[in-house]
Amino acid sequence: MTDTTVPSPTIETDALVIGAGPVGLFQVFELGLLGVSAQVVDALPHVGGQCVELYADKPIYDVPGLPVCSGRELVERLQQQIRPFAPGLHLGHEVSRLQREANGRWLAETGAGLRFVAKTVFIAAGVGAFQPKRLRLDGAEALQGRQLHYQPDTLAADAQQVLIIGGEEAAVQAAVELAGAGRAASVTLLHRRDAFKAPAAWLARLQTLRDGDAVNVAVGQPLALRLSADGALQGLDILDADAQTRTVPATQLLVRQGLSPRLGPIADWGLAMERKLLTVDTARFETSEPGIHAVGDINTYPGKRKLLVSGFHEATLAAFAAAERVFPGQPIHLQYTTTSPKLHERLGVSPPARD
Amino acid sequence: MTDTTVPSPTIETDALVIGAGPVGLFQVFELGLLGVSAQVVDALPHVGGQCVELYADKPIYDVPGLPVCSGRELVERLQQQIRPFAPGLHLGHEVSRLQREANGRWLAETGAGLRFVAKTVFIAAGVGAFQPKRLRLDGAEALQGRQLHYQPDTLAADAQQVLIIGGEEAAVQAAVELAGAGRAASVTLLHRRDAFKAPAAWLARLQTLRDGDAVNVAVGQPLALRLSADGALQGLDILDADAQTRTVPATQLLVRQGLSPRLGPIADWGLAMERKLLTVDTARFETSEPGIHAVGDINTYPGKRKLLVSGFHEATLAAFAAAERVFPGQPIHLQYTTTSPKLHERLGVSPPARD
Repeated sequence: MTDTTVPSPTIETDALVIGAGPVGLFQVFELGLLGVSAQVVDALPHVGGQCVELYADKPIYDVPGLPVCSGRELVERLQQQIRPFAPGLHLGHEVSRLQREANGRWLAETGAGLRFVAKTVFIAAGVGAFQPKRLRLDGAEALQGRQLHYQPDTLAADAQQVLIIGGEEAAVQAAVELAGAGRAASVTLLHRRDAFKAPAAWLARLQTLRDGDAVNVAVGQPLALRLSADGALQGLDILDADAQTRTVPATQLLVRQGLSPRLGPIADWGLAMERKLLTVDTARFETSEPGIHAVGDINTYPGKRKLLVSGFHEATLAAFAAAERVFPGQPIHLQYTTTSPKLHERLGVSPPARD
Repeated sequence: MTDTTVPSPTIETDALVIGAGPVGLFQVFELGLLGVSAQVVDALPHVGGQCVELYADKPIYDVPGLPVCSGRELVERLQQQIRPFAPGLHLGHEVSRLQREANGRWLAETGAGLRFVAKTVFIAAGVGAFQPKRLRLDGAEALQGRQLHYQPDTLAADAQQVLIIGGEEAAVQAAVELAGAGRAASVTLLHRRDAFKAPAAWLARLQTLRDGDAVNVAVGQPLALRLSADGALQGLDILDADAQTRTVPATQLLVRQGLSPRLGPIADWGLAMERKLLTVDTARFETSEPGIHAVGDINTYPGKRKLLVSGFHEATLAAFAAAERVFPGQPIHLQYTTTSPKLHERLGVSPPARD
């Protein structure tokens, strides 16, 4: 028997940042200023973490110098800020394994087999990896990947009766896009009430498609999967608004009920923890393992408050500590972005003209 | 003999913030979110501290979420951010005395006799109080306040030969304004070379006044004060560009050679220090005196870096610690500005509409 699997190439990096939320992004910035290169991994398919999942269009008032700013805007600003440092970005990947190599470096592996070897690691994973909220019905797990999906991109809609479950932007958007593509036999959107939460433009498009019978809306709660004798999905029994049970026909289910955080494999890496949080010192924001730092909502120390302003500070001091490890024997001096030619070079900016 | 001086009223406050630089301003914000009122004192006649003195028009690149921003812009943004909390602002005052009262509160007094009684004190004094750079010539001190001034507002220009020393914005602005007012007998601007550093609009106005002989420019370095037999100022001897000594007539001198920081009376308050910095813990950013916090460039702790991002974090945790003191026995819970109705009320904002 021959092993035909091709091993993924291993990515070598000064720093591996786990989590692409605001603190993970700013971590890249502070590392970049010190000349430390970074790779970033996040379980979500986009950057921004909680800030985009929970606050995308909601105002944040307590970021210093930004009197008001939405979660999405903050993340866009941070993305612009780290642009000079162009980190490798690996979205939709969860680091499942982290272990020390013989040479003192850290080997990290994602569930999908991406491998990193890093001199330093930054866990900026917030409340953990965000996972889709599961459909908790008998038989759901057996259908997953074939007739039950949590991401639209794995769904085969052609000539299928598609049922989408959810009431927020992710569900509305999927319904509009699937109906717009016009390849499904039918598109039904199921929510506990006939009121959806999404940007006005999506809601308007949904209404147009409903008016043209391209999208049906079913109001009710999932009760049971209806399966054929050979276990194929045929529909979903729901309890409707009049407390009646009825069956919505469906051959493909797309569950878009939102995301919930899960600490996941981080708990298994042998790092000292306190109430599901990683304990760190306040000079280097280092965990119990030298070279692994934890910043933002996932860490704890005396006085800790889960605030962005603290995560940014933690990332800054952690970057200095890591730079000492990446450049051993070199003193790491503080330089100011306003005046340092070296930092201007790293930022790709010209200093202001002097007289 | 009757004492005819009227004692200043004493201002009572939850928190006294010493220093109106970026960290002092953000301190007001974090205190305000927690319902703690503040009074702010600064030795400079304007807010912004170092950030405006040294970086007013220079770009800062490392404030999280602000990819580039001048010192002045950052300070304006912070002023806007603290507007809901309308702190008492006392500019041009230096706190000279700080002592604990019998009831545990702190009595602070400025050189000019302003008095505060505060439950908590925040020293956000950066590198210390900025003081005008002195004219170091024999006899200068004896003239100060009568014929030698460091601020334009104490100068009596009417029918006087005014000589202004300096080459930057403060000197140029004073020359333009005094010449524009047209009450001085003459206005001369002295600088070591005929090149001035000021915004273009000021430089253009200066040129117009020079073209019309309303301002004279003298190029050279101050050598000695020329005094009459009874000690009155008559002129200033300078070493000119050709290494010749000559006298510039002057009956009023305005010295605008910039500012330099001075730790000043803070060193005398009995607080634990290390290399001219106040030592603090990293949970409450409290000095050796309970109730007195130190935040920003003036403090030190293991890992400290003199960066804005750290000052903002320090101010945040210090505010929580102070709130415990101001509201004894009440637990101080973390609330988020995005979601907390109480914080929305304090910020004076309406929460976003929900469905």
